[in-house]
Amino acid sequence: MAEVKASNILITGANRGLGLEMVKQLSENSCPNQHVFATCRDPEGPRSEALRELAKKYPSVITIIRLDADDPCSIKESAKKVGALLGANGLNLLVNNAAILARGIIKTSQAEDMKNSFNTNVIGPLLIIQEYLPYLQTAAKASGTPGMSSNKAAIINISTLGGSMTKMPAMFSQFPVLPYCVSKAGFNMLTVLAAEEVKGDEILCMVLHPGWVKTDLGGKNATLEPKESVEGMLRVIGGLTEKEHGGFLDYTGATLPW
Amino acid sequence: MAEVKASNILITGANRGLGLEMVKQLSENSCPNQHVFATCRDPEGPRSEALRELAKKYPSVITIIRLDADDPCSIKESAKKVGALLGANGLNLLVNNAAILARGIIKTSQAEDMKNSFNTNVIGPLLIIQEYLPYLQTAAKASGTPGMSSNKAAIINISTLGGSMTKMPAMFSQFPVLPYCVSKAGFNMLTVLAAEEVKGDEILCMVLHPGWVKTDLGGKNATLEPKESVEGMLRVIGGLTEKEHGGFLDYTGATLPW
Repeated sequence: MAEVKASNILITGANRGLGLEMVKQLSENSCPNQHVFATCRDPEGPRSEALRELAKKYPSVITIIRLDADDPCSIKESAKKVGALLGANGLNLLVNNAAILARGIIKTSQAEDMKNSFNTNVIGPLLIIQEYLPYLQTAAKASGTPGMSSNKAAIINISTLGGSMTKMPAMFSQFPVLPYCVSKAGFNMLTVLAAEEVKGDEILCMVLHPGWVKTDLGGKNATLEPKESVEGMLRVIGGLTEKEHGGFLDYTGATLPW
Repeated sequence: MAEVKASNILITGANRGLGLEMVKQLSENSCPNQHVFATCRDPEGPRSEALRELAKKYPSVITIIRLDADDPCSIKESAKKVGALLGANGLNLLVNNAAILARGIIKTSQAEDMKNSFNTNVIGPLLIIQEYLPYLQTAAKASGTPGMSSNKAAIINISTLGGSMTKMPAMFSQFPVLPYCVSKAGFNMLTVLAAEEVKGDEILCMVLHPGWVKTDLGGKNATLEPKESVEGMLRVIGGLTEKEHGGFLDYTGATLPW
């Protein structure tokens, strides 16, 4: 059950996996005037069919927008389109969910996989935050309430426990995905610095770990269904306050070590 | 006073700043049969003059080798040259010191600066470790002693407190160097995963923070002279055991949080 009451929400990587499930749960339980900008790389392509079906079912809730985290032009274009639709209330909730996974250990990781992972998982979210920050600032100002919450204005960066220097080494033999982990550690740093930079605007910003989920990225052996992970994440997002600003939580609300 | 007794040492970014000071102190206090491969981007260029002078003074200790952390071919070429010189004892100590610094906050950081920082500060060291790992394994096997030490076989990654998710946010207004911090967080992850991967070979691997040092990178306002930082780092490196494997220490030996 979604407990997120933010009016205007944007989710990247919304055509499959956790992004799609998040759009689904938000639509099924949507508050009045709640709107979800579901962004993905190729809205017309075969991999976005499920999202298009969902948007047909909830046409007043979902707007599909093209946004490729690996393409700076598409990020700028998306922000223009979304900005024109947002109006005076701004954007309340930005969920940076899009990510790619590349495998490798020290001996086998390819420079190209390192670069691609970093582009999509770190530089993409940076440029997205840059473009959407004015809309988040608008929402924070328009809210009229003090403090921080995801209903007011928030950036939620979906990262992973695989970005934890404390926890990842012990999991490395089971998850030999060095390019992914390195990019996610960078993404975590991006998040804590963003949190520091936007705190004066009362925009909440934090890192969320979805658990190990049965998606294209998480694989078949994962322990969680997308439904359970997203239910947990939406509960956590809905309950966030300034206490969790700059923090690293999982889908159950537990704090994780960097 | 250098307390590092490793026989064969390779240092990247050895033409200036901390790298140059490290070569200097090692040469001034060199043990018998100690050899330093001082690598830099442009050994013939004007920015390597001080290193060339030092190599003239200590010709039996220092060999200058071209290695540009941003150029995979030069990394491979350097490894061939060094490998031919190392002989049966292998490489005992690899110091990944070369790094670049780019400035920016969330609002101003450029994608190009993010990419360049990641290439030099993360992908470069990854490729360097890949190329030099066989020589480190040779040294570990040749040592005949159990356990881990920098005299036997070690990878020391010179990172920064700016790569600490715990500490960096509070320093961000003083050090608005987001592309650098993000790359160093990735570099720290690279190090802990490398530590996990090479522990079976008894190769020590850890992250070292040199302090805030008056170098081209650290700037004039820094609190430490290169001499003091390097004296501290060499003392720490010389005293490392398997207890510090995969850890994050500063030049005084204090443990830092991720």
